[in-house]
Amino acid sequence: MTENLTWHKTKISKVDRSKLNGHKAACLWFTGLSGSGKSTLAVELEAELYKMGIHTYILDGDNVRHGLNRGLTFSDEDREENIRRIGEVAKLFVDAGIIVLSAFISPFKKDREQVRSLLGKNEFIEVFVNANLETCEARDPKGLYKKARKGEIKEFTGISSPYEEPENPEIIVNNGLNSDLQKNVSQIIDFLKTKEII
Amino acid sequence: MTENLTWHKTKISKVDRSKLNGHKAACLWFTGLSGSGKSTLAVELEAELYKMGIHTYILDGDNVRHGLNRGLTFSDEDREENIRRIGEVAKLFVDAGIIVLSAFISPFKKDREQVRSLLGKNEFIEVFVNANLETCEARDPKGLYKKARKGEIKEFTGISSPYEEPENPEIIVNNGLNSDLQKNVSQIIDFLKTKEII
Repeated sequence: MTENLTWHKTKISKVDRSKLNGHKAACLWFTGLSGSGKSTLAVELEAELYKMGIHTYILDGDNVRHGLNRGLTFSDEDREENIRRIGEVAKLFVDAGIIVLSAFISPFKKDREQVRSLLGKNEFIEVFVNANLETCEARDPKGLYKKARKGEIKEFTGISSPYEEPENPEIIVNNGLNSDLQKNVSQIIDFLKTKEII
Repeated sequence: MTENLTWHKTKISKVDRSKLNGHKAACLWFTGLSGSGKSTLAVELEAELYKMGIHTYILDGDNVRHGLNRGLTFSDEDREENIRRIGEVAKLFVDAGIIVLSAFISPFKKDREQVRSLLGKNEFIEVFVNANLETCEARDPKGLYKKARKGEIKEFTGISSPYEEPENPEIIVNNGLNSDLQKNVSQIIDFLKTKEII
């Protein structure tokens, strides 16, 4: 479908959008085990950023799996396609001037690096939400680990499918036991300020 | 992939985003033959809306076919999947508070109606960019009609694949010979004002 395409230059650029919004665009890519707290952190961060007048959007299982990625399974191949599409959508949001918060396990390093390669320098911010398997399994907010241990869910990350930790993430959030949500939110906001994104 | 999902309520709603932006969100869905002027109109409209401080984004072949929809062909099945994905992405943008402008031929009525069904009342605005085949073929800005007539492009809308005109579009833009771009832009802006979207 890429043949016979000419490029239609839009008149409004990413720079124009950043002027309108009063901040730059970026993709905060939260990765970590199920139950590590990615979505909770993203939701809380978004609420804080909103108070600051910042334009954000969260991509997560709720709004992506039932829609754009409907029909994809948890096989390695489909997981890759799942992350590829999310990466492409994140790129569109960044192009639209938004700070997009993506909260998916995204267990495979090469898939995350592929998304990174789509975006510009400083636009892809990998946030490793670090909580060990024991902690996540003890939390088990959705009862998924229990099901996975019983064999009712196949290819469950951390149990029957690998999680590849980021080697060099922009941000590591320690989200184990006794973690402080507000402190973790502040850590990310400080990072965005330091990088002059907001 | 839709099993084992719980819904994570975000704290920031579409209403909050509309307060931050100062306007409502919507999807302007431009449909029409190749060469009817969908992209030209969308680009010009976006520039005008930007001047008014309105947050927009254009989805078109340039930023979608090379990315999210890479690999899809022009077969009926892939055209349907193409439009389905664009519809889902448009829905995300609307949820993010943006006025999204989608500019694709989107020849099949049922595919457009499927997108309409994804969005809320008054959120899907079908814009039929009406120019007859003779006019579009005379313009032929990308030389595609010439190729299609030679048989070098298969399943080309209007030549070897049907275009189903909208029966009840929210807006009909007459974009034939002697059309006035600024007038057409104003027509759409007036509609958005009347519907109190902007």
